[in-house]
Amino acid sequence: MSQGTVTYQHILVEREGRIAHVTMNRPQRRNALSLEHMQELLDCFTQIGADREVGAVILSGNGPVFCSGHDLSEMTGQTPEFYQQIFDVCTQLMQQIQAIPQPVIAQIHGVATAAGCQLAATCDLVVATEDARFATPGVKIGLFCSTPMVALSRAVPAKLALEMLLTGEMISAQRALEAGLVNRVVPVAELANTARALAEKIVAASPTVVGLGKQAFYRQISMPQPEAYTYTKDVMATNATLADAQEGICAFLEKRPPQWGK
Amino acid sequence: MSQGTVTYQHILVEREGRIAHVTMNRPQRRNALSLEHMQELLDCFTQIGADREVGAVILSGNGPVFCSGHDLSEMTGQTPEFYQQIFDVCTQLMQQIQAIPQPVIAQIHGVATAAGCQLAATCDLVVATEDARFATPGVKIGLFCSTPMVALSRAVPAKLALEMLLTGEMISAQRALEAGLVNRVVPVAELANTARALAEKIVAASPTVVGLGKQAFYRQISMPQPEAYTYTKDVMATNATLADAQEGICAFLEKRPPQWGK
Amino acid sequence: MSQGTVTYQHILVEREGRIAHVTMNRPQRRNALSLEHMQELLDCFTQIGADREVGAVILSGNGPVFCSGHDLSEMTGQTPEFYQQIFDVCTQLMQQIQAIPQPVIAQIHGVATAAGCQLAATCDLVVATEDARFATPGVKIGLFCSTPMVALSRAVPAKLALEMLLTGEMISAQRALEAGLVNRVVPVAELANTARALAEKIVAASPTVVGLGKQAFYRQISMPQPEAYTYTKDVMATNATLADAQEGICAFLEKRPPQWGK
Repeated sequence: MSQGTVTYQHILVEREGRIAHVTMNRPQRRNALSLEHMQELLDCFTQIGADREVGAVILSGNGPVFCSGHDLSEMTGQTPEFYQQIFDVCTQLMQQIQAIPQPVIAQIHGVATAAGCQLAATCDLVVATEDARFATPGVKIGLFCSTPMVALSRAVPAKLALEMLLTGEMISAQRALEAGLVNRVVPVAELANTARALAEKIVAASPTVVGLGKQAFYRQISMPQPEAYTYTKDVMATNATLADAQEGICAFLEKRPPQWGK
Repeated sequence: MSQGTVTYQHILVEREGRIAHVTMNRPQRRNALSLEHMQELLDCFTQIGADREVGAVILSGNGPVFCSGHDLSEMTGQTPEFYQQIFDVCTQLMQQIQAIPQPVIAQIHGVATAAGCQLAATCDLVVATEDARFATPGVKIGLFCSTPMVALSRAVPAKLALEMLLTGEMISAQRALEAGLVNRVVPVAELANTARALAEKIVAASPTVVGLGKQAFYRQISMPQPEAYTYTKDVMATNATLADAQEGICAFLEKRPPQWGK
Repeated sequence: MSQGTVTYQHILVEREGRIAHVTMNRPQRRNALSLEHMQELLDCFTQIGADREVGAVILSGNGPVFCSGHDLSEMTGQTPEFYQQIFDVCTQLMQQIQAIPQPVIAQIHGVATAAGCQLAATCDLVVATEDARFATPGVKIGLFCSTPMVALSRAVPAKLALEMLLTGEMISAQRALEAGLVNRVVPVAELANTARALAEKIVAASPTVVGLGKQAFYRQISMPQPEAYTYTKDVMATNATLADAQEGICAFLEKRPPQWGK
């Protein structure tokens, strides 16, 4: 970000107004998540999280697929410490995507498998092409998709998650849509515009308010309902006192567009 | 309730056999939830909760919509204490709807937005007209729907909840049905009869047993599964010793209608 | 199991390669779950759990229905201790099905009601005939389906669970599929083959890896997401060091079938 001060080897980062486009760019490796690739994504999302000029992020992949998961070429014959590091960094990346204030939209074509499916399940919103497919096939190669299942089982019904995890089979974009893993399924030609349209709706809102709302969502979702209400009613009462809320409500009552603060 | 001893300004309460009809009656304000309106609803549900003559409740709204959420005309320029009170009372109302022993059916036409969508997501069952629509549009006016999201995110898949919260856009009754927010979608002309038919099925059962079951549902749903089983197996063993259970099982075995106790 | 050393009165157990078929065999009682019947199922699943020759289980029922729930003929006029025992054993059975390392597939025809519906909701995967139906009708006989709701409300959206619990009405296999309770709906003639095909996919994988994955699924699903990641990243790093993972990844990279350890 920040006008090209950081150079990445495996990803591309571009700005289009207040939207950041992050593109996985290892097409010859089907955007496999090597340790270096994940470290670049983690660094990039961390920088975006601190960049008040960015209001929404679109995550996509160059080449034939969105993302095929971990890079198996670096997964054999390693020390236990290396595997621990791989899954530590992978988990940090997934948690960072949900921790930053800006919503992240996954723009998916081809396949999203294993940790690639986890990326999809982790992003706040997901758009996919009609022929996109999703799988957690680790069981077939003796490496159960145990970290992907954390995100997957919080996005779709338990029995579908178990089916994907235990059989490793692909599900279609349509089934992913019906199950709640995907927000929009569109023809290939409309994919980028659909993701951009969602991002534009989001950047039209107050970034402060979007950020506090996204953060509150992930906090409350893990709580028993009574605690979730105790927490969110404070969030909402505080939100109501903010300048952007007062401006937004007044603008609505006066039937004029709001002017958000910086 | 109680044969007209309480008079409400913003709501209507009627009895039809063992069914209570609670109707939000601020049609000119799209049934906006002003502080007074919420206090009346809270009082009304509290009284119903203690009224053993009532076996089920149908909540609806007069005028063009079910409920448009908080009353924005009282949401500007207030003290922090006032906003705290608004969301305290709103949260008490939502929790009371789930705490009373009688099932509450939301009967929805037009739109259910913001805290109105939260009301829908909070009721035990929801019936809606084919053209009804649902939204949590607070983000558009700088006031993120943080308390509505507690109910919404426990009723529908996470990505749909996030889409509604982050974009503020309407979803159709059909999508709400597919996502689990709604139990029945029917033509306008069938709305009231559909809600009543559900209520009549419920009041045909033992009120004691319905009440203990509804209460157990909301307790166990927040627990890890092992705790939920420890809790509910006691509920069920105790239930089996009740006169209504013994009567119900005997009536079933003897192929006759049961006679529930008072 | 174990080549006929145990004889059961109410169930049949057969082996077909690495698949175990457990069949409820009280057709004249609609496979009602009497205390003895549940004790046999619990014993059988416990033995299967310890049998490394078994890689997957298919649970079905002889006669007109899959399972009609508890045996009401033994549910009247009993001591509190007896009811406690019934729900203790029932809960142990449900928990054991999820605790054993082998995935369990429910193969459902006719109806699955009350504790029979709970059995379906408890199994890892569910296949059902087009005319199969599901219900939790305890409310109609004064015995709310409080333990079945633990499994049901973790398999389907809350409002559908409440509708089934509060009205006791049947839902179709199609609605169960859309809601996530069922993985496959097929014509009667294809039921057994569909269940077997799922089981065969599962037994083609490493049993060690399937077992650790299934176990991790049920542990992490009850945890807040941050804890779930802390737990599963260790599971996955350990999994990566196992011989079956190293073999599976090498076989994949070398484009040959893997050879799993014993």
